[in-house]
Amino acid sequence: MAYVVGDYLLDRLHELGVTEIFGVPGDFNLRFLDHIVAHEGVRWVGGANELNAGYSADGYARLRGIGAVVTTYGVGELSAANAIAGSYAERVPVVHIVGVPAKDIQANHRVIHHTLGDGDFHHFRRIAAEITCAQADLGAADACAEIDRVLRAVRVHRRPGYLMLATDVAQVEVEPPSTPLAPPADFSSPGARAAFEQAAREFLGGKRVTVLADVFVDRVGATEQLRKLVSGANLPHATLAWGKTLVDESAPNFLGVYSGAASDPVVRDAVEEAERLVTVGVQFTDTITAGFSQRVDPRRTIDIGADRTVIGGVDAYAPLSLATALRILTDIAAEFAPAEATAGGDAAAPQPPADGPLTQAALWPLVADALGDNNIVVADQGTAFFGLATLRMPAGITFLGQPLWGSIGYTLPAALGAGLACPDRRPVLVIGDGAAQLTIQELGVWIRERVPGVIVLVNNNGYAVERAIHGERAPYNDIAPWRWDTLPYAFGADPEAVSVLRARTVGELRDCLSAAAAARDRLVLLEVCTDTVDYPPFMTEVSAAITAANSRS
Amino acid sequence: MAYVVGDYLLDRLHELGVTEIFGVPGDFNLRFLDHIVAHEGVRWVGGANELNAGYSADGYARLRGIGAVVTTYGVGELSAANAIAGSYAERVPVVHIVGVPAKDIQANHRVIHHTLGDGDFHHFRRIAAEITCAQADLGAADACAEIDRVLRAVRVHRRPGYLMLATDVAQVEVEPPSTPLAPPADFSSPGARAAFEQAAREFLGGKRVTVLADVFVDRVGATEQLRKLVSGANLPHATLAWGKTLVDESAPNFLGVYSGAASDPVVRDAVEEAERLVTVGVQFTDTITAGFSQRVDPRRTIDIGADRTVIGGVDAYAPLSLATALRILTDIAAEFAPAEATAGGDAAAPQPPADGPLTQAALWPLVADALGDNNIVVADQGTAFFGLATLRMPAGITFLGQPLWGSIGYTLPAALGAGLACPDRRPVLVIGDGAAQLTIQELGVWIRERVPGVIVLVNNNGYAVERAIHGERAPYNDIAPWRWDTLPYAFGADPEAVSVLRARTVGELRDCLSAAAAARDRLVLLEVCTDTVDYPPFMTEVSAAITAANSRS
Repeated sequence: MAYVVGDYLLDRLHELGVTEIFGVPGDFNLRFLDHIVAHEGVRWVGGANELNAGYSADGYARLRGIGAVVTTYGVGELSAANAIAGSYAERVPVVHIVGVPAKDIQANHRVIHHTLGDGDFHHFRRIAAEITCAQADLGAADACAEIDRVLRAVRVHRRPGYLMLATDVAQVEVEPPSTPLAPPADFSSPGARAAFEQAAREFLGGKRVTVLADVFVDRVGATEQLRKLVSGANLPHATLAWGKTLVDESAPNFLGVYSGAASDPVVRDAVEEAERLVTVGVQFTDTITAGFSQRVDPRRTIDIGADRTVIGGVDAYAPLSLATALRILTDIAAEFAPAEATAGGDAAAPQPPADGPLTQAALWPLVADALGDNNIVVADQGTAFFGLATLRMPAGITFLGQPLWGSIGYTLPAALGAGLACPDRRPVLVIGDGAAQLTIQELGVWIRERVPGVIVLVNNNGYAVERAIHGERAPYNDIAPWRWDTLPYAFGADPEAVSVLRARTVGELRDCLSAAAAARDRLVLLEVCTDTVDYPPFMTEVSAAITAANSRS
Repeated sequence: MAYVVGDYLLDRLHELGVTEIFGVPGDFNLRFLDHIVAHEGVRWVGGANELNAGYSADGYARLRGIGAVVTTYGVGELSAANAIAGSYAERVPVVHIVGVPAKDIQANHRVIHHTLGDGDFHHFRRIAAEITCAQADLGAADACAEIDRVLRAVRVHRRPGYLMLATDVAQVEVEPPSTPLAPPADFSSPGARAAFEQAAREFLGGKRVTVLADVFVDRVGATEQLRKLVSGANLPHATLAWGKTLVDESAPNFLGVYSGAASDPVVRDAVEEAERLVTVGVQFTDTITAGFSQRVDPRRTIDIGADRTVIGGVDAYAPLSLATALRILTDIAAEFAPAEATAGGDAAAPQPPADGPLTQAALWPLVADALGDNNIVVADQGTAFFGLATLRMPAGITFLGQPLWGSIGYTLPAALGAGLACPDRRPVLVIGDGAAQLTIQELGVWIRERVPGVIVLVNNNGYAVERAIHGERAPYNDIAPWRWDTLPYAFGADPEAVSVLRARTVGELRDCLSAAAAARDRLVLLEVCTDTVDYPPFMTEVSAAITAANSRS
């Protein structure tokens, strides 16, 4: 086969770290899929639908640093819109490649399938412009340059990009890339570095410093630099729930997860009463602060953002990258006052009796305790996320949630994507029954792809997170009752290759978690039955804040 | 409860014919859902996800004349975007009601869940503007007037409308509607009527007239007028596949379905060689014309559109409504030349042997023959649609497809919606395994709602419609193999209340279809197994045209 635009795009994606491409076939992308199948470095993972494929690409990108999803024009791309918008909100670099009609069909304004029937072929590009950081309708004349432009933007902004790949343009012969895409340079100016270093010395010198970090540190690749700062200088530090497991939660100077008024008092005091606070990659949103209940005094704070740092709420230093700001603080950390010993936030919870009821309060500590090193925990934005977010996890765990976008059902395909991104790690999906219904068909893909993992499915008869906010007993918060234990078989699993477990008591849950931990070679579906009206404490506090915000009138 | 904006909206929807509202709860719509639950005239039908709920509302609206779907801000509404765009393309009046954050949250640009994190609350409204005919961000000052404006536009344009219903605005006290929404008036001008009547007399007088109609006739409520014209004057007539069953297909002067070069020769000649052709509500699109292979001479044609009619390809008469143009032709039809006897297009197909293989060629006539009066047949845009579209159906059948938008998986929730719209009729869903995977969770809702119906699931190991276009044996056209017969049980069905059947031969299919026809009180899932590479003839011709269009370079 001649080397064409489609190959160029695949080589670029592979260069950036993509080895799996998610998506659903459609007639406008089929010939491009031939090139995926033929490419030595990438593999096609067909999703059951486009929303799920987009979610998988997002979960993959959170681990791998970049992801890609291929859909077809109109019907396919719009089905994925929620996933792409979620990647935008949560700053996950996903490349959305849409197979579109040939240029002559577009130029003739033909009324063909998958269009709105009005001859306008840019409706969906305008939609994409709201939820991606860069878009291109690739043309024969400059397809490669446009691909590079969009991929660069995706890397710099850590947000999705959108590529319209017409059936004919995909087949245009081009030269392979001659040089790699340059990695994003550190754009910090020498002046900003020097000025920030001097000001930080004055602001922090001789003071006790606490660090509060969030997920954006990971997005810009500065996690190691953050870990160096907090461990090297033994600084007390916390994260928000969004950035949970960004740092080693078993470290003695890790305070816990800060969530405003809903925090453990030890964590709350350490953050809010800090002599000096350094916030890194932090954006306060409603769900992770229990309704903006954070109390952080900007006059005592250094706030490190993506490209600027602000000291004392007034003095901004820019252009200054987040990693460089962290490096400068690491360099001067010897001048801070020595940290006081940190009182761990978590008292060991009393062990519930084995025959006791499986309450939400009992459930989550047991799940957290069972998590082994190297697991990837993906928690859906309901009882799962709020139940686990505040619990300390072992080193080596990666915890993923979606607290800003908060699309229920996201995590099932995302956990599959995470598992495919890291074949040497084990995805642990934790999801409620209400959320799982939205995307359940991806279980068939999970089974087909033979990804080992654990699915903890909390069966509590509906949308618990909605019940906690409003309509606790309202019929709209009920769902159709499914027989969850039969689904793996229905979706094609070899009964010998999948373990299906159910827990109704504390003792059963302990046994099931042990069995799941031991069955590392396979998929385990663990159905956990809890009461319909029973919520983790963090969720109760967040829900109360949301109820109040929605009820003002 | 006080009478509030939410009640006003529900009363208006009920006035227009809505008795079921589809959707998924989310925290920004929960209090509005209380009003749905409390309303005496409407009922809440919770979907398994928003795309499916949107599809159900579309199927419902095709039968009922209007439909409504409720989602939550961002995550919910974007999941439904593909369904709404499909309603736009196919001119189906669906009202999309989105629960959005309170006005003070918006005015403060708060970074809250379900947003992109940038404080801009109109991203999704701009998206909706591409795929709906009217939008409103309802405000406390003029919510009722804005609701009426959007609902009027939906009725006039037969396209979706978009309403942002903030949590606080939904609760603002208002007066109930004092007068009904005026029905769309006939906007035809006396001058245009008179001029058209005179010109039509000259153009058609003494000539033999053939009529070609499509689905838009139904959308504007002119179906009865069309039937009067063709039956009263005994005019030979055909429809396109989109408008299949618009007229009584058992009538002696019904020619068949016209699909350009893929038509039965009798139908093709009657349309293309007509002395005078009247096209009504016709828009030629690629899939229903086998790639624009229609041959219609505008010089011999009267083309009746929504608001203008064109005679001989040059003279336009406007403003003139479709129904009025049809009425004028009915009035002057006595002046046309008498029609020649119509040779029916369908020769009776030879009956395949009972132990013969279940080919696509054998399958579709057997399914069509088994259809009873009063069924609503919903055919997915693959082998199902193309297999059935050309076959003559009994009077009283309504056939639904989505040939312009062509979103696979649409039909499963749409058939459920159609069944709920017409409780006295029986939905017959015909869908392939590839398509069914996209939306399968709605089977759980179907079961929960206890809607009797028949699901003919064609199991042929993947996306046959894609195979026919490109990549016949390519791995991307395979899907995860499911155990379809176990899905009703997994999705909660009482085994006594659902029949699960499977056919692998012609004889088995005959038996299964008889059993399905008899089991009118229940849901029947009939799995029909055909070869992986086997397509209905119409699909082969359409696919060849699409392959050619996508391969030009």
